[in-house]
Amino acid sequence: MNKQILLVNRPVGLPKDSDWKLNKAEIPELQEGEILIEQDYLSLDPAMRGWMRDVRSYIPPVGLGEVMRAGTLGRVLKVNNNPKFKVGDIVTGIGGVQQFTVTNGKGYLKIESAQRPLTEYLGTLGMPGMTAYFGILEVGELKDGEVVVVSGAAGAVGSVVGQIAKIKGCKVIGIAGGKDKCDYVVNELGFDACIDYKNDNVAAGLKEHCPKGMDVYFDNVGGDILDACLARISMHARIVICGAISQYNNETPVKGPSNYMSLLVNRGTMRGMVVFDYAARYHEARVQMEQWLNEGKMKSKEDVYEGIENFNETLHRLFNGDKNGKLILKVSE
Amino acid sequence: MNKQILLVNRPVGLPKDSDWKLNKAEIPELQEGEILIEQDYLSLDPAMRGWMRDVRSYIPPVGLGEVMRAGTLGRVLKVNNNPKFKVGDIVTGIGGVQQFTVTNGKGYLKIESAQRPLTEYLGTLGMPGMTAYFGILEVGELKDGEVVVVSGAAGAVGSVVGQIAKIKGCKVIGIAGGKDKCDYVVNELGFDACIDYKNDNVAAGLKEHCPKGMDVYFDNVGGDILDACLARISMHARIVICGAISQYNNETPVKGPSNYMSLLVNRGTMRGMVVFDYAARYHEARVQMEQWLNEGKMKSKEDVYEGIENFNETLHRLFNGDKNGKLILKVSE
Repeated sequence: MNKQILLVNRPVGLPKDSDWKLNKAEIPELQEGEILIEQDYLSLDPAMRGWMRDVRSYIPPVGLGEVMRAGTLGRVLKVNNNPKFKVGDIVTGIGGVQQFTVTNGKGYLKIESAQRPLTEYLGTLGMPGMTAYFGILEVGELKDGEVVVVSGAAGAVGSVVGQIAKIKGCKVIGIAGGKDKCDYVVNELGFDACIDYKNDNVAAGLKEHCPKGMDVYFDNVGGDILDACLARISMHARIVICGAISQYNNETPVKGPSNYMSLLVNRGTMRGMVVFDYAARYHEARVQMEQWLNEGKMKSKEDVYEGIENFNETLHRLFNGDKNGKLILKVSE
Repeated sequence: MNKQILLVNRPVGLPKDSDWKLNKAEIPELQEGEILIEQDYLSLDPAMRGWMRDVRSYIPPVGLGEVMRAGTLGRVLKVNNNPKFKVGDIVTGIGGVQQFTVTNGKGYLKIESAQRPLTEYLGTLGMPGMTAYFGILEVGELKDGEVVVVSGAAGAVGSVVGQIAKIKGCKVIGIAGGKDKCDYVVNELGFDACIDYKNDNVAAGLKEHCPKGMDVYFDNVGGDILDACLARISMHARIVICGAISQYNNETPVKGPSNYMSLLVNRGTMRGMVVFDYAARYHEARVQMEQWLNEGKMKSKEDVYEGIENFNETLHRLFNGDKNGKLILKVSE
């Protein structure tokens, strides 16, 4: 049997247990060209909150009664006449919150020869890492030696953004919640400083650590932190809009950035991104980041929980910050 | 004597008469290299509201007790050993709200052979026109045949933005206040449509006139109109942040654009601009626009009031919309 989590209500605010249904489905017979994947790990990402919403976005919402969408890593168990896959292949894709997936393989990537622990292929070498890589280098147009600020600095995307910027010779200031995360970001990941937004004043921290302003702000959080950063951008700064986790569970309208006119004063650019646009170049980024990880220039941390039954509870850790690295749920039994 | 308007208080909300002082100053003797200009016309621009504010911006604020800053057009009356100017030259610059200016000529442009009525050199051929030209073509990266929306469509900047976009073969939708302005924009300037934000629902108007979204939004107003446009941008749209006149007299915090996450969904770019950055290319733009005006491809309208004593009252027309084209104050007697 295949345990699956179905979306049965559109959540208002933080998703509740009653917004989900644990379903046990038969595993269907494979049609011509299909493969069966046993999913070991689910990737839990802030973007999932958006996929639950019935609004026009970069991807259609998950329908009510459907398996919740999620990035996954698993192994191919069966193949029915599909030359691209063989039994035993390790694959990543958008397999959804379930233990098994049947698919024609479209959108799935094979991890040909895993040089790194498998869970890294959902984090630094997966969608969050791809987001960081193309976000900071392409959308942020990062130049060597610039001053970079990144929020969600201890998270799956932010931690990679900052490390890439350090590799590129930049000064990097993180923003994260709590002393432990800030210590991790500075002591383990090598950021130049980290502002603890839960205990310190962000504007004062930015003034201290970027006295001449920032060239790139990589925004994962939105809200007041985006405003504080806007107030301190340098001339021709770029703001990468990657996410707005502070706003995702709002029951009131999104807080727009009051300081957006700083874009005029400083001839700044604010640009949104969606990682899927770079799918054709994931391989290039993955090879580069595997190399950095192998050389010890980059570190990756995953926080792995277990049990598909614990999906909603684990998901909440994204929003309350109670996690330590890339959030992953192991669903194989 | 030189009548001048001094800024004596930092306005809160709409500038009051008591924020200004009419001063009568002696005209000083010219130092070596200086010229004396008799100013015929002042340009009244929304940006002036920002220059009254004591905040870090793209230009220092006007100091209390100083002559208010303004763009000007006048004639050279005297020259003390300055080879770049001669008596009788027509010049534009930032001469301030006064009847005479003494300057070393830095930042002043000569109108070498005026092909057009002089007041146009403060409007379509002056700073507002330059803002429109570089804003839509460079910052907005306009491409032939795109869908363009511009707010403040009957104003000095917006009317030129829309006309340039029409010349480039675009579909152009204006947003303006009142039926008369909308009729002018469509019937006289040739825009494809104009939404009357004072009487009609902007979101509904955008849905009707840009059913597939807009490629460029040129924003002069901010506030709710910026949000309505964000909600309807196309993939890879560019939003040019030129001004935010709806917010300039706020006594409450600026309303940030709640719909800014549309930049992520649509991979959009929001970029601020300041026209001074293009000073080295003003000549190129002026020659091009003189040609369009002479060929009848572009129209220019100025609304000229008289009397430096009427400065504050005339300035209010910028904010209440009670004007008809580029707002100019004649100050010579």
